[in-house]
Amino acid sequence: MENTTRTTITNTTTGTPACCSCSRDDLPWKGRGTTLDISGCRFSLYPMTDDFVSIILGALEKTDTSAVWSQSDALSTVYRGKLPYVADAVRGLFVNAWKEGVHMALEGQFSKGCPGDCDGDSLLDREGPVPNLPAIQDQHFPVLCKLALYPMGVGNYIDEIARVWRMAETAGLEPASIHYATRIHGDVHAVFDYLEAVCKLMQESVPHYILHFTLSVNSPTQEG
Amino acid sequence: MENTTRTTITNTTTGTPACCSCSRDDLPWKGRGTTLDISGCRFSLYPMTDDFVSIILGALEKTDTSAVWSQSDALSTVYRGKLPYVADAVRGLFVNAWKEGVHMALEGQFSKGCPGDCDGDSLLDREGPVPNLPAIQDQHFPVLCKLALYPMGVGNYIDEIARVWRMAETAGLEPASIHYATRIHGDVHAVFDYLEAVCKLMQESVPHYILHFTLSVNSPTQEG
Repeated sequence: MENTTRTTITNTTTGTPACCSCSRDDLPWKGRGTTLDISGCRFSLYPMTDDFVSIILGALEKTDTSAVWSQSDALSTVYRGKLPYVADAVRGLFVNAWKEGVHMALEGQFSKGCPGDCDGDSLLDREGPVPNLPAIQDQHFPVLCKLALYPMGVGNYIDEIARVWRMAETAGLEPASIHYATRIHGDVHAVFDYLEAVCKLMQESVPHYILHFTLSVNSPTQEG
Repeated sequence: MENTTRTTITNTTTGTPACCSCSRDDLPWKGRGTTLDISGCRFSLYPMTDDFVSIILGALEKTDTSAVWSQSDALSTVYRGKLPYVADAVRGLFVNAWKEGVHMALEGQFSKGCPGDCDGDSLLDREGPVPNLPAIQDQHFPVLCKLALYPMGVGNYIDEIARVWRMAETAGLEPASIHYATRIHGDVHAVFDYLEAVCKLMQESVPHYILHFTLSVNSPTQEG
C-alpha cells in the first residue's frame, strides 16, 4: 500500500475552498497557481431513468478512486491528481455506470493550469499502473461525444484547436464541426484515449487549458 | 408576422456545417468569422426520469423559437440569433421542462465571436419584445448553477472572470469557488437574468467568449 497524502484547504468562513477558482479576485494572478503536476476533471452523470440514484451511486462505488482526490456536491464531482489517474477514474466511472438500454450522458471538463489553482486538494504521490482500466477494458460500447477545447491566455488558440481536430481524424473518430463544438464518435475506449491524449498535448503546449466534453450512450434519437 | 431569414450553409461533402467551428483548420482565422450580431447557445436537457423523452419534446413544443435559428441532433440543440432572443428561448425551454419533483439538469454554453463563425445559420431581423418571458415569468423555483467563463485570445481573461464574479455577488446569487467553476444559486429568473447579463458584458468586452453553465433542479442530494 502506497503512502498517500490528501490535503484540503478550506475557507472556514464560507465553507468553500480557499483557492483554485479563477473567480477569485483577491489572488495575485501571476500565472499558474501551482507549479505542481495537478490535473483535474469535474463531471456530472445523467442517467435518464427513474433509477438514476442507484446507477450513480453504484458507479461511484465500483470505481477505484484511490489514485485521485475526490469531492462531490449536488451538481458534480471533481477528481484531482496526475492526469493518467484522473482520466482513468472518469473512464472507470462512466463504464461502470453504463447499463444496457439506459440513455445516459456524462458532462465534464478536464483542466490544468488555472492561475487560481492551489497546491492542495490533490493526490500526487501515486505511481504505477492505473487502477480502473484492467477491470473495464473488455467492455465496449459506442459513444457519441461533443467537445470544446479552450487554450487560455494565448493568441494562437485556434492553432491548438486545429491540432486536436486533426488528432481526432487520425484516431478514426470522424470529427464534425457543429456550432461551438466538435462532434466525434467511436468505441468508449477510443473516445477516452483521445480525450486523455488531448489533455496530454495541451499540458505540454499551453499554460492553462480546459477541455469540455459530453458523452452520450443509448440515445433514442436516430440521426439521418 | 415579420419577414424572417434563415440560412443554413451546408458542406455537401460531409453533411456538416461548412463554417462556425474553431475545429476547422482550412479557414483564415483572421478574427471573428462574422461581424454580424450573432450569439448562440448550445444546450442539452437531462430529465432524470423514465419519462425523459416526453418532457424534452413537450418543452421543445411549448417553447416559442420563432425568434431564433434552431437545430437539434442526438446530443444537443443550438439556438442562434440576437442575444436577448437566444437567452429567452433557452429560459423558456427550461421553465417549460420543469416538473414538480423531477430532478433535471440543463447543460449549455452561450457564445459569441468565434473566429470560425459564419454569417449563416441565424435569424437576425427580429425586433420587439422577447416571445417566451411573458408566458413563464410568474413561474418560480430554486436553481443550483455552476458556470465557467472563457474570454478567449486575451491575456487579461482573469480580470473579466473576476468582474462577473462580483456581478453575481451584487445580484445576490452568493457565488462560491469550486475547482474549475463557480457556483451560484437563486430563483430561476434571477439565474437566467445573470447569465444573460454576463453574455452582454462579454460581448462588449472581449472579441470571443464562451460561458458554460449547468442548471440543476429538484436534486435529491442534500448539502450540509
